[in-house]
Amino acid sequence: MSSKPSIISSTVMSASEAKWITLKKIKYSDAEGIERVWECAERTTRKSSGIDAVAVLAIIRSKTNAFPLSTIVIEQYRPPIDKFIIEMPAGLIDEGETPEQAAMRELEEETGYKASGVVEATPVVVCDPGMTTANMKLVVLNVDLADKMETPAQKLEAGEFIVKRVIELSKLNEELIAYDAKGFVVDARLAHWASGYEMARRIAGGEFA
Amino acid sequence: MSSKPSIISSTVMSASEAKWITLKKIKYSDAEGIERVWECAERTTRKSSGIDAVAVLAIIRSKTNAFPLSTIVIEQYRPPIDKFIIEMPAGLIDEGETPEQAAMRELEEETGYKASGVVEATPVVVCDPGMTTANMKLVVLNVDLADKMETPAQKLEAGEFIVKRVIELSKLNEELIAYDAKGFVVDARLAHWASGYEMARRIAGGEFA
Repeated sequence: MSSKPSIISSTVMSASEAKWITLKKIKYSDAEGIERVWECAERTTRKSSGIDAVAVLAIIRSKTNAFPLSTIVIEQYRPPIDKFIIEMPAGLIDEGETPEQAAMRELEEETGYKASGVVEATPVVVCDPGMTTANMKLVVLNVDLADKMETPAQKLEAGEFIVKRVIELSKLNEELIAYDAKGFVVDARLAHWASGYEMARRIAGGEFA
Repeated sequence: MSSKPSIISSTVMSASEAKWITLKKIKYSDAEGIERVWECAERTTRKSSGIDAVAVLAIIRSKTNAFPLSTIVIEQYRPPIDKFIIEMPAGLIDEGETPEQAAMRELEEETGYKASGVVEATPVVVCDPGMTTANMKLVVLNVDLADKMETPAQKLEAGEFIVKRVIELSKLNEELIAYDAKGFVVDARLAHWASGYEMARRIAGGEFA
């Protein structure tokens, strides 16, 4: 039985009650030596890698060019937003994992696709550095398929509800805008990747000459 | 007198003590109708626009092609990370402002450049939807200059310490990697935009064929 997720209540919580996130008050000395205060939120789950999470930009290609270069996004209900969010496959890094291992694991769990290799990974980057300490790496993975698009089964845990969708890279930006128009909300990092991808294509097409 | 900013103390703070951020406990009903709990952080500053912030991707161009298409990034100490972060010009939306107005104001304050026009704006996107309610728009602005690169003065408030830097769009991704190697940390959204921009160029160059 499947039903639409919904919020029952949302209440202010003390930091001592919270398990996954905490609030911090930072006293710091600024560039003029003046003492100032900054507030931020922090995950309590960071492992010894020092990196909270990874996101995966998968490049799905056919060895015989049976379909255009594609990527995969996931649709997932996120209680903080109370909407279905469109994101790259992503997740927290487990103890003992490298970011690249976490990326390959999350891609396979959330989408079923096994990576053929690592194209590249960004340095550790910060998600919203004015508000939180959260950090991550973006890992670009190759998924090489043979002569047709395959749709492997996800490996979700009980209680995980994630829909996957393959999108042609050349249509990613417009598909994200279409998702928004249908009431979904797009993750900022995915939207920025798609915006950069689209802008390079527009510039190559002579639009800003 | 300028000195290096530094952390004096970082302590757990109760939600009642916090002014800018709060913690929320969300009870929700999942896709199987099971009651679950989620924790998140929330800005307390959101105005009637319903959008917390904007970021600006500026496209700086010369009407006489005196320099290559460029963009501008800022370097800013961020206490939650205790490092200088490389970000797009950005800021919170003031009451009564549209996202596009906030984008033009922030670009001028933080970099001195006056926008010539709005290229596009993304839908409202969410910064880190597993952890916070924070949302934003990315606004792409044109900055049209005449026959040479100009370096207008910033309009910073007292206590604001922001360094601006113009970077050629075609070198953005490599310059962000170079920043990381020098001990700066790059914002995830800027890194994702640059990754998408670079990937489109690599694909156009035949790398994934």
